[in-house]
Amino acid sequence: MRTPLCDEFGIEYPIFAFTPSEHVAAAVSRAGGLGVLGCVRFNDPDELEQTLTWMDENTDGKPYGVDVVMPMKIPTEGTSMDLGAMIPEEHKKFVDETLLKLGVPPLPEGEGREGVLGWLHSVARSHVDIALKHRPVLIANALGSPPVDVIEQAHAAGVKVAALAGAAKHALSHVRNGVDIIVAQGYEAGGHTGEIAGMVLTPDIVDAVGDVPVLGAGGIGSGRQVAASLALGAQGVWTGSIWLGTEEYQNLQSNAGWTTAFTRATSSDTVRTRIYTGKPARLLKTKWTEAWAEEGAPSPLPMPLQNLLVADAHNRINASGDPDVISMPIGQIVGRMNEVRPVADVMADLVSEFEETVTRLDKLRG
Amino acid sequence: MRTPLCDEFGIEYPIFAFTPSEHVAAAVSRAGGLGVLGCVRFNDPDELEQTLTWMDENTDGKPYGVDVVMPMKIPTEGTSMDLGAMIPEEHKKFVDETLLKLGVPPLPEGEGREGVLGWLHSVARSHVDIALKHRPVLIANALGSPPVDVIEQAHAAGVKVAALAGAAKHALSHVRNGVDIIVAQGYEAGGHTGEIAGMVLTPDIVDAVGDVPVLGAGGIGSGRQVAASLALGAQGVWTGSIWLGTEEYQNLQSNAGWTTAFTRATSSDTVRTRIYTGKPARLLKTKWTEAWAEEGAPSPLPMPLQNLLVADAHNRINASGDPDVISMPIGQIVGRMNEVRPVADVMADLVSEFEETVTRLDKLRG
Repeated sequence: MRTPLCDEFGIEYPIFAFTPSEHVAAAVSRAGGLGVLGCVRFNDPDELEQTLTWMDENTDGKPYGVDVVMPMKIPTEGTSMDLGAMIPEEHKKFVDETLLKLGVPPLPEGEGREGVLGWLHSVARSHVDIALKHRPVLIANALGSPPVDVIEQAHAAGVKVAALAGAAKHALSHVRNGVDIIVAQGYEAGGHTGEIAGMVLTPDIVDAVGDVPVLGAGGIGSGRQVAASLALGAQGVWTGSIWLGTEEYQNLQSNAGWTTAFTRATSSDTVRTRIYTGKPARLLKTKWTEAWAEEGAPSPLPMPLQNLLVADAHNRINASGDPDVISMPIGQIVGRMNEVRPVADVMADLVSEFEETVTRLDKLRG
Repeated sequence: MRTPLCDEFGIEYPIFAFTPSEHVAAAVSRAGGLGVLGCVRFNDPDELEQTLTWMDENTDGKPYGVDVVMPMKIPTEGTSMDLGAMIPEEHKKFVDETLLKLGVPPLPEGEGREGVLGWLHSVARSHVDIALKHRPVLIANALGSPPVDVIEQAHAAGVKVAALAGAAKHALSHVRNGVDIIVAQGYEAGGHTGEIAGMVLTPDIVDAVGDVPVLGAGGIGSGRQVAASLALGAQGVWTGSIWLGTEEYQNLQSNAGWTTAFTRATSSDTVRTRIYTGKPARLLKTKWTEAWAEEGAPSPLPMPLQNLLVADAHNRINASGDPDVISMPIGQIVGRMNEVRPVADVMADLVSEFEETVTRLDKLRG
């Protein structure tokens, strides 16, 4: 499974793995893919600094990437205190009452933390500054093109820039801004996503952007799906959800409830909703997402307010470990995540099933 | 491009083409695929009888199939007069006012016709009776398993039965009922469809049903997409939308507005809604679908009432030829339909691009 991206990044397989866990990212890179560390959870610059130092030391010299969350247009900003004042009382009341109704206990004294500041533009920008002091080969942006000066900053450091796109016209705009790699994020994908499924989106984008390499994203959890994505014209795949089911991820969220939740979920058990960040994102369908879909529930707030509104609730929900309530971005591929496995095993299966699939297809030729 | 389905049905390519046009269906069968004639538009049994006689005579002895719309559970029935009485005045008023607002003229005197009765169980059953007097090799049902006695009736006549499924559990239920072939109908597909995209749904169903052959459906309009679907484990593909853009289809709907509508549409220009039949179906996004999505619009009625409600409106809209208002089930692949072409050319391209794709994939192997 070799495409030109393998040579460009010095990786063995064109399998890109987005993950909030440095343990997963490092394990993917060691196994021949490209681990891409999600930075949005790092409120404290020192923590990101230390984590990237750990990545430098634990990837056997293999390349890795980082992922930030940065809107192209710089949004209204403020401290979390200022922004908090913009959240309507009705919304706070709904969150409090829903947590009570769903039996989610408060966090133990002293364990609360601020909302995730990585959604703020200034914080995402600091993530880029910190990352460029280390040795990432790729900066990916979950919200499309980063501002042009950030792209130029990355290029000046010899780092490629990838951006997610949910439609061909967005991909074209990213390319015009200087983005090097487009991630075609299909409807079936976890997290922020559009309405066009990968089967249609990937070739749409491939044909639109010409020579710019495209990664297929959404619904990739087996070698058959890797082969399908490459058949559609992608030069590699962008994966995310499947790494939430690995042993290495347990270092970040060791929680019996989470394991129960993803192992029992089918591919019908996700929902695309604005309740996580204010923009449409696919989450595991639970009593929490269902509460927001009920009649009388408030409409989600715009980014970045919605995440500030629910961040503490998410901490409480996820600490409670109740698999019926858990809040987690995940794609439709969750139906195929049925056990906790080491990253290296998942990678090996992706590669071997890809080879089997191509051999099978070859035999179908006339 | 040969799979076991080619031998089973005596076809050259495992490309199944659903179409309401006998001209398209016959052309697909003549070109080596399996044309499947949609019967739902035939209110008059004699018209279906004559059309199938035409199919028998215009397919060069090649096999063809038919498609009916039959719920597994026999619903409340009645004449169109009885059912009409169940439609709330609010809904009729909304339809009338919307047509007025959108500038859709009434049909010329004497050109109105009844709602599409093919959605009624008794009418769908009569379609099966008529079809079995001809030589179809396949009866497909757009709403899942037909009733078991209908499956037995088809089998007794040596005819295979296919059923659409939008989730693995539905596919398993179809197989238990005796269905021979599952059509994995992805979210991106036109017409009735579920929420799981083909990238995830096809392997889900393939793995669930074991030896039962699966056709991948949704988003198939190029040889890359055929290869992707076969990579996912499908033994063939089920196509629909792309045939609406062919020269042969113009015999059924020759209308400059329709050609304008599909050639300019991108893959973002569809919407999944209950306004066509009462069940979620993907349509071209137009001012008509948007009117139903506005605040204050009534909720669509259950099947079969919704189609009776809007049938006359659809006749008026489509006769008017206004591309901004047109009402048409179509998949996200509409973005790739950019010109009117002969069926044989579309088929030839599907086959040649499939071959190129498999050759390309083969070179990516380690």
